[in-house]
Amino acid sequence: MAVKFVSERNLKFLLYEVFDIAVLSRLPYYRQHNRKLFDMVLDETLKIARDLMWPCLEEMDRHPPELVDKQVRVHSAVKPIMRELGQGGWIGASFPTEFDGEQLPISVASACHFIFFAANYSAGVYPELTSGAARLIVSFGAQYLITAYVPKMLNGEWQGTMALTEPAAGSSLSDISTWAAPTGEGHYRMQGQKIFISAGDHNGVENVVHLMLARIDGAPAGVKGISLFVVPKKRPDSDGTLVDNDIVVSQVYHKLGYRGTPIVELSIGEKNNCRGYLVGEPHKGLFYMFKMMNETRIGVGLGAAAIASAAYYAALDYTRVRPQGRKASNKGSLARPVPIIEHADVKRMLLFQRAIVEGALSLLLQCSIYADRALTDSGAEKNKWELLLDILTPVAKSYPSEMGILAVSQALQCMGGYGYCEDFPVEQFYRDVRIHPIHEGTTGIQGIDLLGRKVIMQDGQAYRYFLAEARGTNASSKDFDALCANGQRLEEALALIEQVTCHLTAKLPKQGAEIFLADATLYLEFFGIVAIAWQWLLQALTAKRALNGKISRAQNNFYCGKLCTFEYFFAYELPKIRGLAVRLLEDNPVTVEMTPEFFND
Amino acid sequence: MAVKFVSERNLKFLLYEVFDIAVLSRLPYYRQHNRKLFDMVLDETLKIARDLMWPCLEEMDRHPPELVDKQVRVHSAVKPIMRELGQGGWIGASFPTEFDGEQLPISVASACHFIFFAANYSAGVYPELTSGAARLIVSFGAQYLITAYVPKMLNGEWQGTMALTEPAAGSSLSDISTWAAPTGEGHYRMQGQKIFISAGDHNGVENVVHLMLARIDGAPAGVKGISLFVVPKKRPDSDGTLVDNDIVVSQVYHKLGYRGTPIVELSIGEKNNCRGYLVGEPHKGLFYMFKMMNETRIGVGLGAAAIASAAYYAALDYTRVRPQGRKASNKGSLARPVPIIEHADVKRMLLFQRAIVEGALSLLLQCSIYADRALTDSGAEKNKWELLLDILTPVAKSYPSEMGILAVSQALQCMGGYGYCEDFPVEQFYRDVRIHPIHEGTTGIQGIDLLGRKVIMQDGQAYRYFLAEARGTNASSKDFDALCANGQRLEEALALIEQVTCHLTAKLPKQGAEIFLADATLYLEFFGIVAIAWQWLLQALTAKRALNGKISRAQNNFYCGKLCTFEYFFAYELPKIRGLAVRLLEDNPVTVEMTPEFFND
Repeated sequence: MAVKFVSERNLKFLLYEVFDIAVLSRLPYYRQHNRKLFDMVLDETLKIARDLMWPCLEEMDRHPPELVDKQVRVHSAVKPIMRELGQGGWIGASFPTEFDGEQLPISVASACHFIFFAANYSAGVYPELTSGAARLIVSFGAQYLITAYVPKMLNGEWQGTMALTEPAAGSSLSDISTWAAPTGEGHYRMQGQKIFISAGDHNGVENVVHLMLARIDGAPAGVKGISLFVVPKKRPDSDGTLVDNDIVVSQVYHKLGYRGTPIVELSIGEKNNCRGYLVGEPHKGLFYMFKMMNETRIGVGLGAAAIASAAYYAALDYTRVRPQGRKASNKGSLARPVPIIEHADVKRMLLFQRAIVEGALSLLLQCSIYADRALTDSGAEKNKWELLLDILTPVAKSYPSEMGILAVSQALQCMGGYGYCEDFPVEQFYRDVRIHPIHEGTTGIQGIDLLGRKVIMQDGQAYRYFLAEARGTNASSKDFDALCANGQRLEEALALIEQVTCHLTAKLPKQGAEIFLADATLYLEFFGIVAIAWQWLLQALTAKRALNGKISRAQNNFYCGKLCTFEYFFAYELPKIRGLAVRLLEDNPVTVEMTPEFFND
Repeated sequence: MAVKFVSERNLKFLLYEVFDIAVLSRLPYYRQHNRKLFDMVLDETLKIARDLMWPCLEEMDRHPPELVDKQVRVHSAVKPIMRELGQGGWIGASFPTEFDGEQLPISVASACHFIFFAANYSAGVYPELTSGAARLIVSFGAQYLITAYVPKMLNGEWQGTMALTEPAAGSSLSDISTWAAPTGEGHYRMQGQKIFISAGDHNGVENVVHLMLARIDGAPAGVKGISLFVVPKKRPDSDGTLVDNDIVVSQVYHKLGYRGTPIVELSIGEKNNCRGYLVGEPHKGLFYMFKMMNETRIGVGLGAAAIASAAYYAALDYTRVRPQGRKASNKGSLARPVPIIEHADVKRMLLFQRAIVEGALSLLLQCSIYADRALTDSGAEKNKWELLLDILTPVAKSYPSEMGILAVSQALQCMGGYGYCEDFPVEQFYRDVRIHPIHEGTTGIQGIDLLGRKVIMQDGQAYRYFLAEARGTNASSKDFDALCANGQRLEEALALIEQVTCHLTAKLPKQGAEIFLADATLYLEFFGIVAIAWQWLLQALTAKRALNGKISRAQNNFYCGKLCTFEYFFAYELPKIRGLAVRLLEDNPVTVEMTPEFFND
């Protein structure tokens, strides 16, 4: 039997039953698609994930990238994966047909990313980064850049990267100091140092195209002086020959996990011969980058949920076959040991994982649906979908990342001592998933983004749309008596969010930004739990409707499992907001008042 | 400057100021000691930890044990560490002088363990396991076993192990099947297989002495038929020559972390030539083992808290020197970046770590004080200390283990991308600390031990003693107005524990053991948070008293830091019991009703 790392059944439940994406193909933009085609895409994605990516999961971890003769040498599977995902259309899955993309719905592309990430997160990052970098070029770059770079990127011959971080500019991008001097010849001379660049160099591709933030000579200080450049490892000269562009890999980082992807440090322009090509207008680099940030951050959430999915299925398999102990209701030593999945505490650990994995995936696909709507709608409706996507992105990035760590940890715990050993892949998942609260904006940064920007923007419009969406689901669930008690709990949770949000936002004018934002991370956690509760109510509603029809025993098990997991979430996870609310409603700025000296001893 | 992995100041604060261990030396059993001697012991312990154990922390991780020519080869530092800790008296620190021990208070020995574990957890396990195994022999073994084995173990020449786990008997020790046949010659013929045996074989010692659970031929099934044996790797024959005792290492496990200590699989008696020596009476093996279990489990708690301590100081160092961003109250891009320790959210992460590390250590030393009292008192008082130790042991094992993981994770998070890389030791701590919720009884087992055994034993006497201890601290804190609000919160938490405990225990007769124990892990978490809140009130009370005197600026910083961390715990951690109580007071057995089939899809 093939190893299971995702549930195809659950993906189709979410895509077709919960979110009904088949209706997207009625929109002109997606008219060339239909459910049959979506099914084919998912099937083919699963096949590649199983045949090409999963088999090298462990090997890519055990043989991490090395710097050999100034080039990063990666696992030999990277090249065929990039080619297959390029030529098969996955890198350009959601790109318009005018760029030779498949013009698939973003929600379907997200489902594909999820599958690839679950099979092998590191392997999935190469094409995903390339896709993101190419999208920046097609969205804001001049035609000559599109022509020169995008086709090779979308077909997997060239790698794309996001080259933002510098030694003194990690969370604080306003401090970027990589320097770009205009030359009068249509390009800029680049100089600087970038660190922590994922897939920043490797031998699985012919070229690497960095989408790099830098400061044009004489630009204003801070965020308003940062521009975006295409800076290739090798630049195509006039006849298309690739010429070395003076970017040197100065080190490959050795990491806890996520070891199949090289993370590198780059020295740019040491020989004063590195050319960069401006994307869009000068000084708008951060604006462009943040336009793409929703997609990138949802990609991180998908990665975390996907790793947690693979860990969950590994744990589920194990608990079904591992006999140990008797049920508490039948402790006689003569009774035969039962598979541990029969113990309530083990079921609790499995339900926790399932609640996180399927709840997080639901929210991530919900965000992708909003992105699809925003792309295909116009006017006030478009604005609404964009705002919903904006406010939910920090949640969809951080909830799966933070809770994914705990879910994988519970998977490991289900397997006891074996989970801690290299005999099973869970210890690798535990290492791999720890990156997600760090990269593409730490959880702390997401908290500030949510409370300090998204909740208060447009006078709270995005926040009100979110409340209305959740209340809409709640109203629909009133048809089912069995959902009413938890519907009431969701309504109380939404009322508590309103109370907490009012309490916090009132602090901004009176006590200033520092006190206002001091507990933004807790607010993000609070918001995340409520958002996932909403998604579980939505799933339960769908399951209840399905159970009203005539269904097979297997279908019945699936929908009943959904309802149990929904009950679990409302019984065990949602109540966590009570403790968070106690803190968030308090006026005692403990962390602000703690001075660094008090940490001395 | 030397690397900091523990706070000497904090250890002395807890030992001398909070718990006033100097009074122990007034007891006849500890009369040969005094504070000056305790100070010398702590100083020497720190010196060995710094000079001998810390320097090989990374190397022992990078070069894990290997099986070479049927023997496990470990890092070359293991041998000198065992010898130094043996000859210097640390292995026998709390053993009576009649066994050539130092007869030090258990609380002082615990502090020493904590220091060694913080410097290098893997290295600290070898002597600690040896100490535990030797204590089993001196407590229950015949004089000939004591004479033959204990001196070599206490001086670090021979390794001791706990050989419990088998392929089919992990959490469920009643299923042990290793077989012991009486020979009529004073020994037993042993046959079986043991797995996951820490330090089960290595070349850093001359011999390995397994304290092994096995079933004597014809013994009753279940827990009542298990006996304890001394089973050496090499048995001393009549003239003291060491003879191979037919124990083969069949594999060394490759693990996520804790890689400096070998964990092995043993085949026992393959050639029918393995001799075991019964400890105490037949069929009492589990009883003996569990007599030692409090000490072993507190050792695990100390290990977890110690690793979290080392991670905390690494993070603290980093946040003090890493400039990034501006304070939210001063966002102008022209302002200079501040060290990240000045950001409220980073201070929150550091306070979290400190609250866990120092709160957990306080509870662990509290348990050791109870052990000291139990050893030196008699009658009803002795019984009281034993019961307090019994009820708090599952908490003192699991709270540091579970929260230690989160604390180390926050240390890693404080360091951003660097925390994820091997350039800093925190990624190793993150791997090392994950073992603690697994070994010596998983967290699930601890929950069942607390709720299913300790809370209800002797008609709730241990539980009532705990409540009385916490309320006693609360009563003392009423002298200080500044502590009253949190004292009130602790009282409410204790009232909530009473409510939850009543609610749960009422289920046992009515609904049976399975439903009664279904949420035992949550109950354990709840209990742990309240126990640590109590310890923080105790520390705050001590700090307040000290602040009333004339003190230096450094002392003032230390005590103010204690009070801030206390405030943090009551503001951010204690409220978590609200959410747990919602669940624990509910009657909806979600996890019991979830059937394994509902996990199908």
